[in-house]
Amino acid sequence: MLIKDIMTHDVIAIGPEIPIVDAVTMMKLRNIQHFPIMDESGQLVGIVSERDLLIVSSEHETAPQNIELKDPVNKIMTRSVKTCNSLEPIEEVAKRLLKQNIGSMPVIDNNKLVGIVTAKDFLKAVEKISGGKLETTRIEVEVENQPGALAKLLNFLAERNVNVNAVMTSWSDNDVVCFVLRIVCKQPNSLLESLQRADFHILWPNTELLKMPTTA
Amino acid sequence: MLIKDIMTHDVIAIGPEIPIVDAVTMMKLRNIQHFPIMDESGQLVGIVSERDLLIVSSEHETAPQNIELKDPVNKIMTRSVKTCNSLEPIEEVAKRLLKQNIGSMPVIDNNKLVGIVTAKDFLKAVEKISGGKLETTRIEVEVENQPGALAKLLNFLAERNVNVNAVMTSWSDNDVVCFVLRIVCKQPNSLLESLQRADFHILWPNTELLKMPTTA
Repeated sequence: MLIKDIMTHDVIAIGPEIPIVDAVTMMKLRNIQHFPIMDESGQLVGIVSERDLLIVSSEHETAPQNIELKDPVNKIMTRSVKTCNSLEPIEEVAKRLLKQNIGSMPVIDNNKLVGIVTAKDFLKAVEKISGGKLETTRIEVEVENQPGALAKLLNFLAERNVNVNAVMTSWSDNDVVCFVLRIVCKQPNSLLESLQRADFHILWPNTELLKMPTTA
Repeated sequence: MLIKDIMTHDVIAIGPEIPIVDAVTMMKLRNIQHFPIMDESGQLVGIVSERDLLIVSSEHETAPQNIELKDPVNKIMTRSVKTCNSLEPIEEVAKRLLKQNIGSMPVIDNNKLVGIVTAKDFLKAVEKISGGKLETTRIEVEVENQPGALAKLLNFLAERNVNVNAVMTSWSDNDVVCFVLRIVCKQPNSLLESLQRADFHILWPNTELLKMPTTA
């Protein structure tokens, strides 16, 4: 999955001379949390977050001194902007967001702003990756971390005419890899029994959860 | 992957009588963005975000009226708190965070606060799911959306002694499913050629990206 598959396409950039008070109003109206800032030539010159904006003109200790709501956003914007491009794999960008402890990245292709990606977009990614939107059965199976181990599981499912609609790696170490599968299967209980009889190690469904009610 | 695998375990809850100004200081010190609020009996009674706190005592139009920094957080906290439990699959919780347009959920097991999960934790999830931390080769392959299609691909890899370290579904429709695989393979180029000769539809590596430099 690439950044173009999860990014917000209709990104709104503002000019560096826009007053802080107007940026706050726009952010609220659009329900967004980050504004890329572009100069007249279309060059990305900064980024400003809701946090940067809200702290202005407050009594908070960390409020910037001598800055007022009527001042331009360029007085408070972050000038060193980290960006990505739309064809980068999402996991590479996730890694950089975490490493740099930032909440968003403008997406730039050929010097043009084409979108923005925030931590929230990765919620959409998880939903997509896991096939969580589909009417499927979720199983989680641990296999050996060696060539052919996952193929063996998938052959077992294919022989029983079970379609695998989504796969995701849950975790792995040197010995084992644990996969979450979303399968289309009319009789999941009997499939689970036959998987267990064939010595597959099923981690989900687990009995522990069944005892604990969802608290949502 | 379950919520317990990605949540922040050392969650800090505060009492409802803590002054807003102190909550802001603690948030800054700990570099966090959400505080669950618990009463003396250990009951979760609210949640407060950085955004809720920063807007207090500012000149912003949306600042709450007649509330000062010395007032207790219970004056501004959100009282209806959405929670999850630690054994829920991450994709189910991602779905609820998106649907309710919220940035975090306290994690409650048997009436006890055991953690908190925020959009940022899903960045970690994407990194884990994709095996993005490992020294592996990333390939993306489109297969038919029917029983046995993924098994065929994995058998092909197993026969060539290629270990699959991570799999994630990139997207799917009624006809095809696209999988991202992280493989351990000494000669990825010759593997890609043989996959193509066997009529597998490779979406990654693609030639388009190679033309475009990363702009980070």
